[in-house]
Amino acid sequence: MKPKDFNEMRKKLTDLTLDRANLNVKRFFALDHAAYEEGALDSKTKELLGLIASMVLRCDDCIYYHLEQCFKAEVSSEELMEAMNIALVVGGSIVIPHLRRATKYWEDLAYEASQT
Amino acid sequence: MKPKDFNEMRKKLTDLTLDRANLNVKRFFALDHAAYEEGALDSKTKELLGLIASMVLRCDDCIYYHLEQCFKAEVSSEELMEAMNIALVVGGSIVIPHLRRATKYWEDLAYEASQT
Amino acid sequence: MKPKDFNEMRKKLTDLTLDRANLNVKRFFALDHAAYEEGALDSKTKELLGLIASMVLRCDDCIYYHLEQCFKAEVSSEELMEAMNIALVVGGSIVIPHLRRATKYWEDLAYEASQT
Amino acid sequence: MKPKDFNEMRKKLTDLTLDRANLNVKRFFALDHAAYEEGALDSKTKELLGLIASMVLRCDDCIYYHLEQCFKAEVSSEELMEAMNIALVVGGSIVIPHLRRATKYWEDLAYEASQT
Amino acid sequence: MKPKDFNEMRKKLTDLTLDRANLNVKRFFALDHAAYEEGALDSKTKELLGLIASMVLRCDDCIYYHLEQCFKAEVSSEELMEAMNIALVVGGSIVIPHLRRATKYWEDLAYEASQT
Amino acid sequence: MKPKDFNEMRKKLTDLTLDRANLNVKRFFALDHAAYEEGALDSKTKELLGLIASMVLRCDDCIYYHLEQCFKAEVSSEELMEAMNIALVVGGSIVIPHLRRATKYWEDLAYEASQT
Repeated sequence: MKPKDFNEMRKKLTDLTLDRANLNVKRFFALDHAAYEEGALDSKTKELLGLIASMVLRCDDCIYYHLEQCFKAEVSSEELMEAMNIALVVGGSIVIPHLRRATKYWEDLAYEASQT
Repeated sequence: MKPKDFNEMRKKLTDLTLDRANLNVKRFFALDHAAYEEGALDSKTKELLGLIASMVLRCDDCIYYHLEQCFKAEVSSEELMEAMNIALVVGGSIVIPHLRRATKYWEDLAYEASQT
Repeated sequence: MKPKDFNEMRKKLTDLTLDRANLNVKRFFALDHAAYEEGALDSKTKELLGLIASMVLRCDDCIYYHLEQCFKAEVSSEELMEAMNIALVVGGSIVIPHLRRATKYWEDLAYEASQT
Repeated sequence: MKPKDFNEMRKKLTDLTLDRANLNVKRFFALDHAAYEEGALDSKTKELLGLIASMVLRCDDCIYYHLEQCFKAEVSSEELMEAMNIALVVGGSIVIPHLRRATKYWEDLAYEASQT
Repeated sequence: MKPKDFNEMRKKLTDLTLDRANLNVKRFFALDHAAYEEGALDSKTKELLGLIASMVLRCDDCIYYHLEQCFKAEVSSEELMEAMNIALVVGGSIVIPHLRRATKYWEDLAYEASQT
Repeated sequence: MKPKDFNEMRKKLTDLTLDRANLNVKRFFALDHAAYEEGALDSKTKELLGLIASMVLRCDDCIYYHLEQCFKAEVSSEELMEAMNIALVVGGSIVIPHLRRATKYWEDLAYEASQT
């Protein structure tokens, strides 16, 4: 899926979910957001942590989201591949299909950025 | 995926699978069915249990199926959101993409019902 | 592990963790607690949901905790077994070792209660 | 997804990934390949092991790949169903959506082979 | 844990569980047993399948049980290591602690057998 | 488990496993080791990635190992808690028992270090 399409779909469904959510669900979303804010660890490191957690748990939507955040935090392609290698070794070959799609999504992010 | 399309696809593949299945696989399907039958716990509670198990294990097909059963068992939107909040807290933010799609599917179920 | 020993160990480690936790971790613990409060769904149903989520995700500590809450909420042994059967069918035979220990823990809870 | 389309998409993404991969990622891919080579256990048994591991971990891409390898290794439909039944019993009903798609993919493999 | 102690503990808890189980739970245990019976695939292959499913899902009790069955089915140490390598590659380094304990348990099985 | 005891047990079992391992298993252990070496990302970041992957996959042995590496890499308690909070939010309350034991282990590491 292309970043632009993914983000559009994601936003639409998030808006619907938050509209229907009760207070506790909304609080969870707030905590999720807060976890990646600059602190003792910088945002870049935190986004890499979120990415690797998403990869070993094998959730494409979560991977795409954190790839975007890593891209914005100026993670280099070399750094990204080293981080993804840790996810691959810890999580095993079952992670490979997600690694393939992540590699493609990263390409697409760079391409979209180059078009602006 | 719209409920109507999901159910059609699901039925087609289930029919094929049961046609090719051996006796033990068929018995598993029977046990799976039996688990949700009215007993000491009512069907509504059991469908909520099936839904939350499916959410923390992150299987969309299973989630859609149990959402339909919950809808038929007249689970309210408020009850559903409280149950899904438990899945979210136990399973973590990795459950969010499934929560988003579940919220949309629940909307679509209500819409389809209103059209009949 | 006996309920009394489990609870003691659990309390000691929870106290240490909350003492060391930052604000976001504390907020997560609060959200976790809030998820099981009486609402549109009663506490008994919510504890069963927490138990089944814990069983399919295969976490003994979480299972023991929710068994205690189910016991306090006066879940009957028959209701419990029907709920655990759903966890077994959804989660598969990999759940059996946890089912075994849960059955034993439930016995021990009844025994401890009978001694007071 | 049809075998022909799956293989095409898989090859394209694998080529991209290996092109971008660092040395350690490439080594992982080599180890992954080596695991299924004829040894004390024959390839057929090893592919069945890979298939069942993929089913209980619930990864469609991995399942499709090993189904192809099983097909090439002349696993019979009866043998396949017995192996998949083990995945179903160990992994539970959460495996059913994957079993459904695997059954369809196996049909499609036989159909494609009959057309050559 | 030593094989003798494991088997004793396992038997005790299984007996208690089956005593408390309802009909559906008992049927699940029967299906679980039936999955490994000689059929189109021989018992040895089926036990290896059960072992590898247990390793990638990371359940020590299940691993110990299938190691015993593999030992009885005369799986060689070389065959076992090749099968466990597949579990390691598919499941990743998170499997290593289980691989370590499995290697030790296999040693203990051989030792116990040599003492009889 | 105390760090000293854990390390002793871990070393003993690793030695046995590598002694019995075939070439591919040994290569996997080498790749696992290589993943955390200084590169585009520094060792400290990589150990945090390994820790968080281990926490969301819920493996105590892996968590203890990476906690030791984080301690050696001079991760501060504040940094550690922020990283563990990400694991908690992504992985959910099912991670809490591991967070509790990790907090205790971190204390024990500091204590052991203060005794030398």
